[in-house]
Amino acid sequence: MKNFNKYPKKDKQPKIPKLQINIFGYHAVHEAWLNPNRNVKKVFVTEKALENFKPLIAQAQEQGLKRPKYQLVERKQIDKTLGQYVVHQGIAAYAQPFEELNAMDVIIKAQKQEKSVFVMLDQVTDPHNVGAIMRSACAFNLSGMVMQTRFAPQLEGTLAKVACGGVEHVPVALETNLSRALETFKEHGYRCIALDERGEKKIGEFGGLDKVVLVMGAEGKGLRPSVRDACTDMARIDMLGPLASINVSNASAISFYALTNEK
Amino acid sequence: MKNFNKYPKKDKQPKIPKLQINIFGYHAVHEAWLNPNRNVKKVFVTEKALENFKPLIAQAQEQGLKRPKYQLVERKQIDKTLGQYVVHQGIAAYAQPFEELNAMDVIIKAQKQEKSVFVMLDQVTDPHNVGAIMRSACAFNLSGMVMQTRFAPQLEGTLAKVACGGVEHVPVALETNLSRALETFKEHGYRCIALDERGEKKIGEFGGLDKVVLVMGAEGKGLRPSVRDACTDMARIDMLGPLASINVSNASAISFYALTNEK
Repeated sequence: MKNFNKYPKKDKQPKIPKLQINIFGYHAVHEAWLNPNRNVKKVFVTEKALENFKPLIAQAQEQGLKRPKYQLVERKQIDKTLGQYVVHQGIAAYAQPFEELNAMDVIIKAQKQEKSVFVMLDQVTDPHNVGAIMRSACAFNLSGMVMQTRFAPQLEGTLAKVACGGVEHVPVALETNLSRALETFKEHGYRCIALDERGEKKIGEFGGLDKVVLVMGAEGKGLRPSVRDACTDMARIDMLGPLASINVSNASAISFYALTNEK
Repeated sequence: MKNFNKYPKKDKQPKIPKLQINIFGYHAVHEAWLNPNRNVKKVFVTEKALENFKPLIAQAQEQGLKRPKYQLVERKQIDKTLGQYVVHQGIAAYAQPFEELNAMDVIIKAQKQEKSVFVMLDQVTDPHNVGAIMRSACAFNLSGMVMQTRFAPQLEGTLAKVACGGVEHVPVALETNLSRALETFKEHGYRCIALDERGEKKIGEFGGLDKVVLVMGAEGKGLRPSVRDACTDMARIDMLGPLASINVSNASAISFYALTNEK
Protein backbone atom coordinates (compact mmCIF):
# COMPACT_ATOMS: atom_id res chain seq x y z
CA MET A 1 0.00 0.00 0.00
CA LYS A 2 1.42 3.31 -1.02
CA ASN A 3 1.19 6.46 1.00
CA PHE A 4 2.23 9.34 -1.21
CA ASN A 5 2.03 11.87 1.55
CA LYS A 6 4.30 10.14 3.98
CA TYR A 7 7.52 11.30 2.39
CA PRO A 8 6.73 14.54 0.66
CA LYS A 9 9.29 15.73 -1.83
CA LYS A 10 11.50 18.49 -0.51
CA ASP A 11 10.12 21.10 -2.91
CA LYS A 12 6.59 20.36 -1.73
CA GLN A 13 7.33 21.58 1.81
CA PRO A 14 5.80 24.98 2.56
CA LYS A 15 8.24 27.73 1.75
CA ILE A 16 8.42 30.93 3.74
CA PRO A 17 8.60 33.74 1.21
CA LYS A 18 11.10 36.53 1.85
CA LEU A 19 9.68 39.96 2.64
CA GLN A 20 10.72 43.25 1.09
CA ILE A 21 12.41 44.95 4.04
CA ASN A 22 14.95 47.75 4.32
CA ILE A 23 14.24 48.98 7.87
CA PHE A 24 13.73 47.02 11.06
CA GLY A 25 13.61 47.50 14.80
CA TYR A 26 11.10 49.53 16.77
CA HIS A 27 12.79 52.95 16.84
CA ALA A 28 13.91 52.81 13.20
CA VAL A 29 10.42 51.89 11.90
CA HIS A 30 8.68 54.23 14.37
CA GLU A 31 10.62 57.30 13.15
CA ALA A 32 10.25 56.38 9.47
CA TRP A 33 6.50 55.87 9.95
CA LEU A 34 6.04 59.34 11.45
CA ASN A 35 8.42 61.10 9.05
CA PRO A 36 6.25 63.17 6.67
CA ASN A 37 9.13 63.20 4.16
CA ARG A 38 9.35 59.43 4.00
CA ASN A 39 7.29 57.25 1.68
CA VAL A 40 6.64 54.11 3.74
CA LYS A 41 5.41 51.36 1.42
CA LYS A 42 5.04 48.34 3.68
CA VAL A 43 5.07 47.48 7.37
CA PHE A 44 5.40 43.95 8.71
CA VAL A 45 4.58 43.39 12.34
CA THR A 46 4.15 40.39 14.61
CA GLU A 47 1.10 39.93 16.84
CA LYS A 48 3.30 40.64 19.84
CA ALA A 49 4.87 43.81 18.43
CA LEU A 50 1.49 45.13 17.24
CA GLU A 51 0.59 46.46 20.68
CA ASN A 52 3.46 48.95 20.61
CA PHE A 53 2.79 49.82 17.00
CA LYS A 54 -0.96 50.57 17.30
CA PRO A 55 -0.61 54.03 18.86
CA LEU A 56 1.56 55.01 15.87
CA ILE A 57 -1.26 54.20 13.45
CA ALA A 58 -3.53 56.67 15.20
CA GLN A 59 -0.72 59.23 15.39
CA ALA A 60 -0.06 59.00 11.63
CA GLN A 61 -3.77 59.50 10.94
CA GLU A 62 -3.88 62.58 13.16
CA GLN A 63 -0.91 63.97 11.27
CA GLY A 64 -2.65 63.28 7.97
CA LEU A 65 0.08 60.94 6.78
CA LYS A 66 -0.71 58.51 3.98
CA ARG A 67 0.39 55.15 5.31
CA PRO A 68 -0.21 51.54 4.17
CA LYS A 69 -2.12 48.96 6.21
CA TYR A 70 0.28 46.87 8.29
CA GLN A 71 0.77 43.20 7.43
CA LEU A 72 0.58 40.77 10.33
CA VAL A 73 3.43 38.27 10.00
CA GLU A 74 5.05 35.56 12.06
CA ARG A 75 8.42 36.24 13.64
CA LYS A 76 10.04 33.52 11.52
CA GLN A 77 9.05 35.32 8.32
CA ILE A 78 11.13 38.33 9.34
CA ASP A 79 13.87 35.99 10.63
CA LYS A 80 13.88 34.26 7.25
CA THR A 81 14.45 37.55 5.44
CA LEU A 82 16.99 39.09 7.79
CA GLY A 83 18.74 36.00 9.16
CA GLN A 84 18.05 34.68 12.62
CA TYR A 85 20.80 36.64 14.35
CA VAL A 86 19.39 40.05 13.54
CA VAL A 87 17.45 41.74 16.35
CA HIS A 88 14.31 43.18 14.74
CA GLN A 89 11.90 43.34 17.70
CA GLY A 90 9.09 41.90 15.54
CA ILE A 91 8.74 44.95 13.32
CA ALA A 92 10.13 45.74 9.87
CA ALA A 93 9.26 47.97 6.94
CA TYR A 94 10.05 48.93 3.41
CA ALA A 95 10.37 52.65 2.81
CA GLN A 96 11.43 54.39 -0.36
CA PRO A 97 15.09 55.41 -0.05
CA PHE A 98 15.79 59.11 0.43
CA GLU A 99 16.37 61.44 -2.46
CA GLU A 100 20.09 61.88 -3.08
CA LEU A 101 21.54 65.16 -1.81
CA ASN A 102 24.87 66.87 -2.38
CA ALA A 103 26.88 69.35 -0.28
CA MET A 104 25.15 72.39 -1.77
CA ASP A 105 21.71 70.91 -0.99
CA VAL A 106 22.49 70.47 2.69
CA ILE A 107 24.17 73.88 2.96
CA ILE A 108 20.95 75.46 1.66
CA LYS A 109 18.84 73.39 4.08
CA ALA A 110 20.99 74.68 6.97
CA GLN A 111 20.78 78.36 6.00
CA LYS A 112 18.02 79.18 8.46
CA GLN A 113 19.85 77.61 11.40
CA GLU A 114 21.62 79.91 13.85
CA LYS A 115 24.33 77.35 14.45
CA SER A 116 25.24 74.75 11.87
CA VAL A 117 27.57 71.81 12.47
CA PHE A 118 28.16 69.10 9.85
CA VAL A 119 30.13 65.88 10.18
CA MET A 120 32.08 64.56 7.20
CA LEU A 121 33.18 60.91 7.25
CA ASP A 122 36.25 60.07 5.20
CA GLN A 123 35.87 56.36 4.38
CA VAL A 124 34.28 55.35 7.65
CA THR A 125 32.20 52.44 6.37
CA ASP A 126 31.17 50.14 9.22
CA PRO A 127 27.36 50.33 9.52
CA HIS A 128 27.52 50.07 13.32
CA ASN A 129 29.88 53.03 13.55
CA VAL A 130 28.07 55.15 10.95
CA GLY A 131 24.71 54.31 12.58
CA ALA A 132 25.96 55.30 16.05
CA ILE A 133 27.44 58.53 14.62
CA MET A 134 24.12 59.31 12.96
CA ARG A 135 22.27 58.74 16.24
CA SER A 136 24.58 61.18 18.05
CA ALA A 137 24.44 63.65 15.15
CA CYS A 138 20.66 63.66 15.54
CA ALA A 139 20.84 64.07 19.33
CA PHE A 140 23.23 67.02 19.06
CA ASN A 141 21.12 68.62 16.34
CA LEU A 142 23.75 68.53 13.62
CA SER A 143 22.82 69.99 10.23
CA GLY A 144 23.87 66.89 8.34
CA MET A 145 26.44 64.29 7.39
CA VAL A 146 28.68 64.20 4.32
CA MET A 147 30.13 60.97 2.92
CA GLN A 148 31.99 59.91 -0.18
CA THR A 149 29.65 58.34 -2.74
CA ARG A 150 31.86 55.29 -3.30
CA PHE A 151 32.25 54.42 0.38
CA ALA A 152 28.92 55.45 1.85
CA PRO A 153 26.95 52.58 3.41
CA GLN A 154 23.23 52.41 2.59
CA LEU A 155 21.06 54.33 5.07
CA GLU A 156 19.04 51.25 5.99
CA GLY A 157 19.23 47.87 7.71
CA THR A 158 21.69 47.60 10.58
CA LEU A 159 22.83 51.19 10.15
CA ALA A 160 19.25 52.49 10.48
CA LYS A 161 18.62 50.16 13.43
CA VAL A 162 21.71 51.41 15.29
CA ALA A 163 20.83 55.02 14.42
CA CYS A 164 17.50 54.52 16.31
CA GLY A 165 15.60 56.77 13.91
CA GLY A 166 18.43 59.23 13.34
CA VAL A 167 18.41 58.56 9.57
CA GLU A 168 14.97 60.20 9.40
CA HIS A 169 16.26 63.47 10.80
CA VAL A 170 19.85 63.95 9.64
CA PRO A 171 20.26 64.98 5.97
CA VAL A 172 23.06 63.06 4.24
CA ALA A 173 25.04 64.50 1.33
CA LEU A 174 27.04 62.28 -0.99
CA GLU A 175 30.01 63.67 -2.89
CA THR A 176 32.46 61.94 -5.21
CA ASN A 177 35.31 64.16 -4.05
CA LEU A 178 35.44 65.17 -0.39
CA SER A 179 38.24 67.76 -0.80
CA ARG A 180 36.16 69.58 -3.38
CA ALA A 181 33.10 69.36 -1.12
CA LEU A 182 35.15 71.03 1.63
CA GLU A 183 35.89 73.91 -0.78
CA THR A 184 32.14 74.38 -1.21
CA PHE A 185 31.65 74.51 2.55
CA LYS A 186 34.52 77.00 2.94
CA GLU A 187 33.03 79.24 0.26
CA HIS A 188 29.88 79.36 2.40
CA GLY A 189 31.65 80.44 5.56
CA TYR A 190 32.30 77.07 7.21
CA ARG A 191 35.43 76.32 9.23
CA CYS A 192 36.50 72.79 8.30
CA ILE A 193 38.09 71.05 11.28
CA ALA A 194 40.00 67.78 10.92
CA LEU A 195 40.03 65.68 14.06
CA ASP A 196 43.65 64.57 14.35
CA GLU A 197 45.86 63.75 17.33
CA ARG A 198 48.44 66.22 15.98
CA GLY A 199 45.98 69.11 16.22
CA GLU A 200 47.40 72.22 17.85
CA LYS A 201 44.12 73.16 19.46
CA LYS A 202 41.66 71.17 21.51
CA ILE A 203 38.30 70.45 19.88
CA GLY A 204 36.53 72.36 22.70
CA GLU A 205 38.25 75.58 21.60
CA PHE A 206 36.05 75.57 18.48
CA GLY A 207 32.80 75.42 20.46
CA GLY A 208 31.94 79.04 19.84
CA LEU A 209 31.82 78.81 16.04
CA ASP A 210 28.52 79.09 14.17
CA LYS A 211 29.48 77.19 11.03
CA VAL A 212 31.63 74.09 11.31
CA VAL A 213 32.35 70.94 9.34
CA LEU A 214 33.95 68.29 11.57
CA VAL A 215 36.01 65.90 9.45
CA MET A 216 36.57 62.37 10.77
CA GLY A 217 38.87 59.69 9.35
CA ALA A 218 38.52 55.94 9.62
CA GLU A 219 39.98 54.15 12.64
CA GLY A 220 43.53 53.00 11.99
CA LYS A 221 43.90 54.67 8.61
CA GLY A 222 42.94 58.16 9.78
CA LEU A 223 42.22 60.98 7.36
CA ARG A 224 43.62 60.88 3.85
CA PRO A 225 46.20 63.65 3.45
CA SER A 226 44.28 65.29 0.57
CA VAL A 227 41.18 65.61 2.75
CA ARG A 228 43.14 66.83 5.76
CA ASP A 229 44.91 69.43 3.65
CA ALA A 230 41.58 70.79 2.47
CA CYS A 231 40.61 71.55 6.09
CA THR A 232 41.13 74.97 7.70
CA ASP A 233 42.09 73.59 11.14
CA MET A 234 43.19 70.49 13.00
CA ALA A 235 41.83 69.73 16.44
CA ARG A 236 42.67 67.03 18.96
CA ILE A 237 40.94 65.30 21.85
CA ASP A 238 43.32 65.06 24.81
CA MET A 239 43.67 61.56 26.18
CA LEU A 240 46.19 60.82 28.91
CA GLY A 241 45.58 57.10 29.34
CA PRO A 242 47.88 54.18 28.54
CA LEU A 243 46.14 53.51 25.20
CA ALA A 244 45.14 56.83 23.67
CA SER A 245 42.73 55.57 21.05
CA ILE A 246 38.95 55.48 21.05
CA ASN A 247 36.24 54.20 18.75
CA VAL A 248 35.36 56.57 15.87
CA SER A 249 31.73 56.90 17.00
CA ASN A 250 32.89 57.80 20.52
CA ALA A 251 35.35 60.37 19.14
CA SER A 252 32.53 61.81 17.00
CA ALA A 253 30.14 62.01 19.96
CA ILE A 254 32.74 63.81 22.06
CA SER A 255 33.38 66.27 19.24
CA PHE A 256 29.67 66.95 18.68
CA TYR A 257 29.34 67.62 22.40
CA ALA A 258 32.42 69.86 22.46
CA LEU A 259 31.27 71.82 19.40
CA THR A 260 27.70 72.36 20.58
CA ASN A 261 28.09 72.80 24.35
CA GLU A 262 29.78 75.97 25.41
CA LYS A 263 30.71 76.07 29.03
CA MET B 1 35.43 -4.41 -7.11
CA LYS B 2 35.07 -2.72 -3.81
CA ASN B 3 36.61 0.56 -2.90
CA PHE B 4 36.34 1.03 0.84
CA ASN B 5 37.72 4.52 0.77
CA LYS B 6 35.25 5.95 -1.68
CA TYR B 7 32.52 6.60 0.88
CA PRO B 8 34.26 7.18 4.19
CA LYS B 9 32.04 7.07 7.22
CA LYS B 10 31.20 10.48 8.63
CA ASP B 11 33.06 9.93 11.90
CA LYS B 12 36.18 8.98 10.02
CA GLN B 13 36.54 12.44 8.50
CA PRO B 14 39.29 14.53 10.07
CA LYS B 15 37.94 16.58 12.94
CA ILE B 16 39.24 20.04 13.75
CA PRO B 17 39.72 20.20 17.50
CA LYS B 18 38.52 23.31 19.30
CA LEU B 19 41.17 25.52 20.85
CA GLN B 20 41.19 26.96 24.37
CA ILE B 21 40.66 30.65 23.65
CA ASN B 22 39.38 33.55 25.74
CA ILE B 23 41.00 36.49 23.91
CA PHE B 24 41.24 37.22 20.20
CA GLY B 25 42.09 40.04 17.83
CA TYR B 26 45.44 41.76 17.41
CA HIS B 27 45.11 44.61 19.92
CA ALA B 28 43.49 42.46 22.62
CA VAL B 29 46.17 39.73 22.40
CA HIS B 30 48.98 42.27 21.99
CA GLU B 31 48.11 44.11 25.21
CA ALA B 32 47.59 40.89 27.20
CA TRP B 33 50.93 39.55 25.94
CA LEU B 34 52.81 42.62 27.15
CA ASN B 35 50.90 42.98 30.42
CA PRO B 36 53.28 41.90 33.21
CA ASN B 37 50.28 41.26 35.47
CA ARG B 38 48.69 38.81 33.06
CA ASN B 39 49.44 35.10 32.94
CA VAL B 40 49.23 34.25 29.23
CA LYS B 41 49.03 30.47 28.87
CA LYS B 42 48.63 29.94 25.12
CA VAL B 43 48.85 31.90 21.89
CA PHE B 44 47.48 30.67 18.57
CA VAL B 45 48.57 32.48 15.47
CA THR B 46 48.22 31.94 11.72
CA GLU B 47 51.21 32.07 9.37
CA LYS B 48 49.88 35.34 8.00
CA ALA B 49 49.36 36.98 11.41
CA LEU B 50 52.76 35.81 12.65
CA GLU B 51 54.59 38.67 10.95
CA ASN B 52 52.83 41.25 13.11
CA PHE B 53 53.24 39.12 16.21
CA LYS B 54 56.99 38.44 15.95
CA PRO B 55 58.15 41.86 17.24
CA LEU B 56 56.05 41.24 20.36
CA ILE B 57 57.99 38.06 21.12
CA ALA B 58 61.23 40.02 21.22
CA GLN B 59 59.59 42.78 23.24
CA ALA B 60 58.35 40.34 25.89
CA GLN B 61 61.84 38.83 26.15
CA GLU B 62 63.37 42.27 26.64
CA GLN B 63 60.86 42.95 29.41
CA GLY B 64 61.73 39.64 31.05
CA LEU B 65 58.17 38.34 30.71
CA LYS B 66 57.60 34.60 30.97
CA ARG B 67 55.60 33.73 27.88
CA PRO B 68 54.66 30.46 26.16
CA LYS B 69 55.81 29.49 22.65
CA TYR B 70 53.17 30.41 20.10
CA GLN B 71 51.27 27.66 18.29
CA LEU B 72 51.00 28.00 14.53
CA VAL B 73 47.43 27.20 13.48
CA GLU B 74 45.28 27.46 10.40
CA ARG B 75 42.64 30.15 10.23
CA LYS B 76 39.87 27.57 10.15
CA GLN B 77 40.95 26.19 13.53
CA ILE B 78 40.27 29.56 15.17
CA ASP B 79 37.09 29.91 13.06
CA LYS B 80 35.95 26.51 14.29
CA THR B 81 36.34 27.59 17.92
CA LEU B 82 34.89 31.10 17.65
CA GLY B 83 32.36 30.67 14.83
CA GLN B 84 33.04 31.92 11.34
CA TYR B 85 31.48 35.35 11.83
CA VAL B 86 33.90 36.47 14.53
CA VAL B 87 36.71 38.76 13.36
CA HIS B 88 39.87 37.46 15.03
CA GLN B 89 42.59 38.70 12.64
CA GLY B 90 44.35 35.33 12.81
CA ILE B 91 45.43 35.63 16.43
CA ALA B 92 43.93 34.31 19.65
CA ALA B 93 45.09 33.44 23.15
CA TYR B 94 44.19 31.94 26.45
CA ALA B 95 45.14 34.04 29.46
CA GLN B 96 44.32 33.39 33.08
CA PRO B 97 41.36 35.58 34.10
CA PHE B 98 42.10 38.52 36.35
CA GLU B 99 41.98 38.26 40.12
CA GLU B 100 38.62 39.46 41.42
CA LEU B 101 38.66 42.96 42.94
CA ASN B 102 36.12 44.88 45.01
CA ALA B 103 35.48 48.61 45.45
CA MET B 104 37.93 48.93 48.33
CA ASP B 105 40.70 47.29 46.28
CA VAL B 106 40.37 49.77 43.43
CA ILE B 107 40.10 52.75 45.79
CA ILE B 108 43.43 51.72 47.33
CA LYS B 109 44.99 51.24 43.87
CA ALA B 110 43.92 54.82 42.98
CA GLN B 111 45.29 56.43 46.14
CA LYS B 112 48.50 57.62 44.50
CA GLN B 113 46.69 59.30 41.60
CA GLU B 114 46.26 63.06 41.66
CA LYS B 115 42.92 62.80 39.89
CA SER B 116 40.76 59.71 40.12
CA VAL B 117 37.63 59.07 38.05
CA PHE B 118 35.74 55.77 38.20
CA VAL B 119 32.81 54.65 36.08
CA MET B 120 30.09 52.48 37.62
CA LEU B 121 27.77 50.56 35.28
CA ASP B 122 24.31 49.74 36.64
CA GLN B 123 23.23 46.67 34.68
CA VAL B 124 24.82 47.66 31.38
CA THR B 125 25.49 44.17 30.03
CA ASP B 126 26.02 44.27 26.25
CA PRO B 127 29.65 43.21 25.60
CA HIS B 128 29.97 45.68 22.70
CA ASN B 129 28.91 48.58 24.90
CA VAL B 130 30.95 47.53 27.93
CA GLY B 131 33.98 46.88 25.69
CA ALA B 132 33.71 50.32 24.05
CA ILE B 133 33.29 51.96 27.49
CA MET B 134 36.39 50.14 28.71
CA ARG B 135 38.38 51.32 25.68
CA SER B 136 37.39 54.95 26.38
CA ALA B 137 37.97 54.51 30.12
CA CYS B 138 41.53 53.43 29.28
CA ALA B 139 42.06 56.32 26.85
CA PHE B 140 40.91 58.90 29.41
CA ASN B 141 43.01 57.31 32.13
CA LEU B 142 40.15 56.37 34.43
CA SER B 143 41.03 54.67 37.72
CA GLY B 144 38.65 51.79 37.15
CA MET B 145 35.22 50.40 36.45
CA VAL B 146 32.67 49.07 38.95
CA MET B 147 29.95 46.59 37.98
CA GLN B 148 27.39 44.46 39.77
CA THR B 149 28.58 40.88 40.20
CA ARG B 150 25.36 39.32 38.86
CA PHE B 151 25.24 41.40 35.68
CA ALA B 152 28.91 41.85 34.82
CA PRO B 153 29.92 40.37 31.46
CA GLN B 154 33.18 38.38 31.38
CA LEU B 155 36.23 40.50 30.57
CA GLU B 156 37.12 38.41 27.53
CA GLY B 157 35.98 37.47 24.03
CA THR B 158 34.04 40.13 22.14
CA LEU B 159 34.23 42.56 25.05
CA ALA B 160 38.04 42.33 25.15
CA LYS B 161 38.23 42.60 21.35
CA VAL B 162 36.10 45.77 21.32
CA ALA B 163 38.08 47.20 24.26
CA CYS B 164 41.25 46.94 22.08
CA GLY B 165 43.47 46.09 25.03
CA GLY B 166 41.65 48.29 27.55
CA VAL B 167 40.86 45.30 29.80
CA GLU B 168 44.60 44.99 30.52
CA HIS B 169 44.81 48.52 31.92
CA VAL B 170 41.49 49.34 33.62
CA PRO B 171 40.94 47.67 37.01
CA VAL B 172 37.41 46.27 37.38
CA ALA B 173 35.68 45.93 40.74
CA LEU B 174 32.67 43.67 41.21
CA GLU B 175 30.17 44.34 43.98
CA THR B 176 26.94 42.54 44.84
CA ASN B 177 25.28 45.79 45.93
CA LEU B 178 26.09 48.96 44.01
CA SER B 179 24.39 51.34 46.46
CA ARG B 180 26.57 49.99 49.23
CA ALA B 181 29.64 50.29 46.99
CA LEU B 182 28.77 53.97 46.46
CA GLU B 183 28.76 54.45 50.26
CA THR B 184 32.32 53.10 50.33
CA PHE B 185 33.38 55.57 47.63
CA LYS B 186 31.70 58.46 49.46
CA GLU B 187 33.48 57.53 52.69
CA HIS B 188 36.74 57.94 50.76
CA GLY B 189 35.95 61.41 49.49
CA TYR B 190 34.41 60.60 46.11
CA ARG B 191 31.55 62.61 44.60
CA CYS B 192 29.15 60.11 43.04
CA ILE B 193 27.50 61.58 39.95
CA ALA B 194 24.52 59.91 38.30
CA LEU B 195 24.19 60.70 34.60
CA ASP B 196 20.49 61.50 34.18
CA GLU B 197 18.60 63.77 31.81
CA ARG B 198 16.93 65.38 34.83
CA GLY B 199 20.27 66.50 36.27
CA GLU B 200 20.33 70.13 37.41
CA LYS B 201 23.93 70.64 36.38
CA LYS B 202 25.79 69.85 33.17
CA ILE B 203 28.38 67.10 33.35
CA GLY B 204 31.11 69.59 32.36
CA GLU B 205 30.53 71.52 35.60
CA PHE B 206 32.07 68.61 37.51
CA GLY B 207 35.31 68.68 35.50
CA GLY B 208 37.33 70.29 38.29
CA LEU B 209 36.78 67.53 40.85
CA ASP B 210 39.64 65.25 41.90
CA LYS B 211 37.60 62.24 43.00
CA VAL B 212 34.55 61.22 41.03
CA VAL B 213 32.46 58.12 40.42
CA LEU B 214 30.36 58.51 37.26
CA VAL B 215 27.29 56.28 37.49
CA MET B 216 25.69 55.11 34.22
CA GLY B 217 22.40 53.24 33.78
CA ALA B 218 21.40 50.90 30.99
CA GLU B 219 19.88 52.33 27.82
CA GLY B 220 16.09 52.42 28.03
CA LYS B 221 15.85 51.36 31.66
CA GLY B 222 18.16 54.02 33.02
CA LEU B 223 19.49 53.95 36.57
CA ARG B 224 17.64 52.01 39.22
CA PRO B 225 16.21 54.47 41.79
CA SER B 226 18.12 52.86 44.69
CA VAL B 227 21.42 53.43 42.87
CA ARG B 228 20.53 56.98 41.81
CA ASP B 229 19.51 57.84 45.37
CA ALA B 230 22.90 56.71 46.66
CA CYS B 231 24.60 59.29 44.42
CA THR B 232 25.59 62.75 45.64
CA ASP B 233 24.73 64.56 42.36
CA MET B 234 22.86 64.21 39.09
CA ALA B 235 24.36 65.57 35.88
CA ARG B 236 22.99 65.84 32.37
CA ILE B 237 24.38 66.06 28.84
CA ASP B 238 22.55 68.78 26.92
CA MET B 239 21.16 67.59 23.60
CA LEU B 240 18.97 69.85 21.51
CA GLY B 241 18.26 67.52 18.59
CA PRO B 242 14.97 65.93 17.53
CA LEU B 243 15.85 62.60 19.21
CA ALA B 244 17.74 63.36 22.41
CA SER B 245 19.10 59.90 23.11
CA ILE B 246 22.55 58.49 22.50
CA ASN B 247 24.25 55.15 22.88
CA VAL B 248 25.48 54.40 26.42
CA SER B 249 29.11 54.06 25.30
CA ASN B 250 28.90 57.45 23.55
CA ALA B 251 27.35 59.03 26.65
CA SER B 252 30.15 57.51 28.74
CA ALA B 253 32.87 58.77 26.39
CA ILE B 254 31.44 62.30 26.47
CA SER B 255 31.31 62.18 30.27
CA PHE B 256 34.89 60.91 30.58
CA TYR B 257 35.98 63.74 28.31
CA ALA B 258 33.97 66.33 30.24
CA LEU B 259 35.27 65.10 33.59
CA THR B 260 38.94 64.96 32.58
CA ASN B 261 39.29 67.93 30.20
CA GLU B 262 39.09 71.29 31.83
CA LYS B 263 38.84 74.13 29.41
